[in-house]
Amino acid sequence: MGSTFGTIFKTTTFGESHGSGVGAVVDGCPAGITISVDEIQLQLERRRPGQSRLSTPRQESDEVEILSGVEDGLTLGTPIGLLVRNRNQKPGDYRKMADIPRPSHADYSYRMKYGLTSSSGGGRASARETLARVAAGSVAEQFLRAVFGVEIVAWVSQVGAVELDLNESEFKDFSRSEVDNAIVRCPDRQKADLMTLAIERAAAAKDSLGGVISCFCRNVPAGWGEPVFDKLDALLAQAMISIPAAKGFVSGSGFAAALMTGFAHNDRFVKDGSGLKTKTNFSGGVQGGISNGQLIHFKVAFKPVPTIGRAQKTADYEGREVVLEGKGRHDPCVVPRAVPIVEAMAALTLADLALRQRSTRF
Amino acid sequence: MGSTFGTIFKTTTFGESHGSGVGAVVDGCPAGITISVDEIQLQLERRRPGQSRLSTPRQESDEVEILSGVEDGLTLGTPIGLLVRNRNQKPGDYRKMADIPRPSHADYSYRMKYGLTSSSGGGRASARETLARVAAGSVAEQFLRAVFGVEIVAWVSQVGAVELDLNESEFKDFSRSEVDNAIVRCPDRQKADLMTLAIERAAAAKDSLGGVISCFCRNVPAGWGEPVFDKLDALLAQAMISIPAAKGFVSGSGFAAALMTGFAHNDRFVKDGSGLKTKTNFSGGVQGGISNGQLIHFKVAFKPVPTIGRAQKTADYEGREVVLEGKGRHDPCVVPRAVPIVEAMAALTLADLALRQRSTRF
Amino acid sequence: MGSTFGTIFKTTTFGESHGSGVGAVVDGCPAGITISVDEIQLQLERRRPGQSRLSTPRQESDEVEILSGVEDGLTLGTPIGLLVRNRNQKPGDYRKMADIPRPSHADYSYRMKYGLTSSSGGGRASARETLARVAAGSVAEQFLRAVFGVEIVAWVSQVGAVELDLNESEFKDFSRSEVDNAIVRCPDRQKADLMTLAIERAAAAKDSLGGVISCFCRNVPAGWGEPVFDKLDALLAQAMISIPAAKGFVSGSGFAAALMTGFAHNDRFVKDGSGLKTKTNFSGGVQGGISNGQLIHFKVAFKPVPTIGRAQKTADYEGREVVLEGKGRHDPCVVPRAVPIVEAMAALTLADLALRQRSTRF
Amino acid sequence: MGSTFGTIFKTTTFGESHGSGVGAVVDGCPAGITISVDEIQLQLERRRPGQSRLSTPRQESDEVEILSGVEDGLTLGTPIGLLVRNRNQKPGDYRKMADIPRPSHADYSYRMKYGLTSSSGGGRASARETLARVAAGSVAEQFLRAVFGVEIVAWVSQVGAVELDLNESEFKDFSRSEVDNAIVRCPDRQKADLMTLAIERAAAAKDSLGGVISCFCRNVPAGWGEPVFDKLDALLAQAMISIPAAKGFVSGSGFAAALMTGFAHNDRFVKDGSGLKTKTNFSGGVQGGISNGQLIHFKVAFKPVPTIGRAQKTADYEGREVVLEGKGRHDPCVVPRAVPIVEAMAALTLADLALRQRSTRF
Repeated sequence: MGSTFGTIFKTTTFGESHGSGVGAVVDGCPAGITISVDEIQLQLERRRPGQSRLSTPRQESDEVEILSGVEDGLTLGTPIGLLVRNRNQKPGDYRKMADIPRPSHADYSYRMKYGLTSSSGGGRASARETLARVAAGSVAEQFLRAVFGVEIVAWVSQVGAVELDLNESEFKDFSRSEVDNAIVRCPDRQKADLMTLAIERAAAAKDSLGGVISCFCRNVPAGWGEPVFDKLDALLAQAMISIPAAKGFVSGSGFAAALMTGFAHNDRFVKDGSGLKTKTNFSGGVQGGISNGQLIHFKVAFKPVPTIGRAQKTADYEGREVVLEGKGRHDPCVVPRAVPIVEAMAALTLADLALRQRSTRF
Repeated sequence: MGSTFGTIFKTTTFGESHGSGVGAVVDGCPAGITISVDEIQLQLERRRPGQSRLSTPRQESDEVEILSGVEDGLTLGTPIGLLVRNRNQKPGDYRKMADIPRPSHADYSYRMKYGLTSSSGGGRASARETLARVAAGSVAEQFLRAVFGVEIVAWVSQVGAVELDLNESEFKDFSRSEVDNAIVRCPDRQKADLMTLAIERAAAAKDSLGGVISCFCRNVPAGWGEPVFDKLDALLAQAMISIPAAKGFVSGSGFAAALMTGFAHNDRFVKDGSGLKTKTNFSGGVQGGISNGQLIHFKVAFKPVPTIGRAQKTADYEGREVVLEGKGRHDPCVVPRAVPIVEAMAALTLADLALRQRSTRF
Repeated sequence: MGSTFGTIFKTTTFGESHGSGVGAVVDGCPAGITISVDEIQLQLERRRPGQSRLSTPRQESDEVEILSGVEDGLTLGTPIGLLVRNRNQKPGDYRKMADIPRPSHADYSYRMKYGLTSSSGGGRASARETLARVAAGSVAEQFLRAVFGVEIVAWVSQVGAVELDLNESEFKDFSRSEVDNAIVRCPDRQKADLMTLAIERAAAAKDSLGGVISCFCRNVPAGWGEPVFDKLDALLAQAMISIPAAKGFVSGSGFAAALMTGFAHNDRFVKDGSGLKTKTNFSGGVQGGISNGQLIHFKVAFKPVPTIGRAQKTADYEGREVVLEGKGRHDPCVVPRAVPIVEAMAALTLADLALRQRSTRF
Repeated sequence: MGSTFGTIFKTTTFGESHGSGVGAVVDGCPAGITISVDEIQLQLERRRPGQSRLSTPRQESDEVEILSGVEDGLTLGTPIGLLVRNRNQKPGDYRKMADIPRPSHADYSYRMKYGLTSSSGGGRASARETLARVAAGSVAEQFLRAVFGVEIVAWVSQVGAVELDLNESEFKDFSRSEVDNAIVRCPDRQKADLMTLAIERAAAAKDSLGGVISCFCRNVPAGWGEPVFDKLDALLAQAMISIPAAKGFVSGSGFAAALMTGFAHNDRFVKDGSGLKTKTNFSGGVQGGISNGQLIHFKVAFKPVPTIGRAQKTADYEGREVVLEGKGRHDPCVVPRAVPIVEAMAALTLADLALRQRSTRF
């Protein structure tokens, strides 16, 4: 259970890192939308391990195959099956650790839940699962851009103590190519260098680092989001916290809102052509859970990767104290590769709400 | 759309502040559970406006009626209908403002979404909608406590700049009665006084303040939470951000995780009786989206109430600059009354995952 | 569980016959639709017990109250709460039988399911539950007629051995007022008289009769219905068989299809203005689960009412043989009153598929 | 939309006949269940075209691959990905007919719905889609048998005018191997021969025949089924009518119920060991939508295959009269091959309700 996201634009994912493959079924994508496999592949590349010296040397070849739902480059309105085969499996690495639940990993809670231990340990908690999200998210994004002109850009805004703290006027014109200028996916050259350095130091110490990803969604029309439980920001929160290692989500002003007065925080309206816009955007483009036509922006915090090479004392399932030294091939910092995942989840959230809004008025 | 929460333990709410009433239908609560109406009423009282000098003087009488699903104090397994009648409506207050979308309120986005303006302005964005959540949440809580011994306690940990920053060992024994010792619902007397002062100052300035609510859930067994989209923390995030005025959600270490290394952040296992527990709990009781048996804890940030008495320049729907002075009866700070709402949403989230876990193993 | 119908136009019902009331929450009805309470009330009257000498003498006053979601006669786009209070409860009648599961009633299976026995016996299996369907169905119908011109007409086509067997050209112009000309709701005067006679004879024998209801939906545009599980006819089948006492559903040619060859059964296309229509309509307006623009028509079979006055040997929960004589006030034949229920369920099915179709193309 | 079936045991299918493959994702199957791929394959073989002289000569090799969710023959509790590759595609056959909507096929309604025509014509209306149902249904069946001992057997009870009309005592001991004794899948030798003859005659006339499949489910415990919309028989009805070509569904007494009196139709209770059973079973094992522990039995009517070789006059999309002669490789009668599809859909329905019942009591 729990492998489906969305009500109309509905994505179901499957796959463990040690099985035959991971994939997704996207049901509910409208018919007649142009889908480029290359564009899906591009986002998969941005998520791929081994893409830079900052990430694990595993050279996974993550080629996506469209199994159904697209013909001659156009969606048929039927479910879009997406499959990425697993390759380069080294179950041996993990098998050694099967008796020891890795700290802050999902091994223990999976065993408690399902009553067994798979060769994938935390099973669906494997980062490889996110491949399916990225592939499905790219379909959603292609739909959103084609029909509404929506654009989604995410970037690394913090790694360890290095933070890129910008206000909306400074980040609102970011493009994905700017973000990709640095391998750490921070569009500020100086901060990018400091982040890279921080990650390399952590790697050298066989340790890992956490970070923060910021994201905005441009050109989202006013009116998306379903009161009261499926508010736009509420579903974004679910989407983001469902990404492995995510620990926090803020929309607009976030926790800083607590420090402000209503007078300072209120986004007053001003004339904008024949309509209205707001002078400030502490709301992050969402009011009462519904988009108001302003830029949607939010942040997601990620914990440091729990699998580290550095020796750590812990206990095996029998309660015996053991010293664990991770041998797996893991990134010292997940956030550069999580950028396309955040974008994918944002796209899946918006695509569904876009379709739900279609039923609201006649 | 969007008024239903949960997959098995499924709550559907209805009602605007200016209609006949608000309520909920709870479908999927197991049969044979003892439900006390008084306990529901108690939580409604904690949410009620006018309960202290910190909140609006409106003296709403929020009496809940159970319409169905409970007989002789026991659930029948059938849908539980809950209704709270609206009283003391003063539509006049709002009607005056119908041409002016209140800044950072939902008036504008509701009009964009539905193509009309109701006498409730943002309709379901009214705080009154949360009554239904609290009533349904109390049913969920009574089920969780009866069957699993789960306890949920929330408290105000920040108002404006006044923060009560505790670690788990300091807050893990809080009780609701301690929380209710101060009208601001902060269990630390000194901080509570400072918070009260801050709210009174904001009120005097016809302004408002934001804040943060912290919450823990005790005795949640390991195994609850559904990978990959319906992770325990992901659904909590949705639940919390769906509360009016919520701007941020963190689970366990939250944004602080970004600053830590994996070595420091990893929750190592140690023997605990015949099982295991973790030495630290940066994970907030959730690993890989599944409860691990430790205390679940999280925080929710709330923006300052947007409706303020202080005059603010904004625009009407025609784009004409106007000066708006709120006349409605609103709280200067929403967090003290939001405490039972946070508890209710946590209960609704856990009750559903508890039932979903029942299908996982035989 | 199981009290919600629909994906976008979503109806959740609640209520037992011995509680405070029954009702429904309709979430997902578009905004700006005119809703007449009188029209809802009219359908409730057609369902009401005691409306004619053919039905139970109970004079239930089934007044519907709209609790939310409608203002000044227009839908707001928010959940529409509907409530009908229970009155005239005589639990005594039932209490006597609490130790004996009534044959072919739901008492036994409810006790097996929920582990308890309520004063309503089969709880939600009470015919009174259908009030909520009729009220919600009327909202759906008003939406369908206003936006698409859809019309739904059901009538009694069989009672016991008396059958009104018509082909499409004979029934396609039926109106509700014609149907209501006879209290048995068969639009053919002669057959109606025979049916009435049959029911009166069964009543005199303290027995009951089954029957069949036929229904058509006019002006349904081509394109409604969602392959592959939510086909228009598949959801109609669920909707109809979910009505108490329903035992069979056929669409178009039904079981007669088994007797035909493909050549005879195929609905060939012919020019119709600038488009196409079919020469015959064995498909019942649905091909591949999707409406094709022709008249949708189907039938539903109902078993005889299980609660009868005539003495019958059966066993109590202890297995002791007992003789049961029903004392409750029940109809000798349910089909005349089930006509508006069939219409309501058809409307709920179509309203949802109408909205789902909105997301299919841009 | 519409490609997902079930609430907890949730099956999502994908795939057209002219794409790369068809498949299913089964999410919500409990962990630790033994799954035999051979058993899935066996049911696929029973559905396979070309398995006997009664069916199309297409020799599709329908090998299923399990992509995820099963390790060492045991379910992991994670989504089970199932894939069957398409082979032997001859799009040419269909392309010729792309301008002519085949009568009583889904070409026309698909074009009306999605606004385009795929090389598969009715796309998901292709019989090949049912492969995914059979594969997923086999997983459901293996779960049901392992945990509850449930057994499901379907057989052909009518082809054209040849009917095998049995009462429960005559069919309740049927086994699948008896059913498979005749290629037409009717367990009565004489009737089987007559049915085979009828099909061969239809084939010789380049025509096709309809039929009826009967099915029972043994050892279903009392208590399964969710009032009021997700009643066991209501969901069975949806499941069955969602099968391509299905036109009717009856449970227990079906349309014959209309002819009976309550006294005759009522299933009286008698002592059975320490519990109760019913003397008759007109209810078909379901009362008030909930299983009562008796044999569940129902029938499904199928129309004659619409694609026939015999020339038929119809119109193209422009409304021009044309003569259509089917060249595709299609069965003259679908029912023998639909037997495992009916079993699969019954298994998917029951597996979900079995899991939903787990949440009803503690």
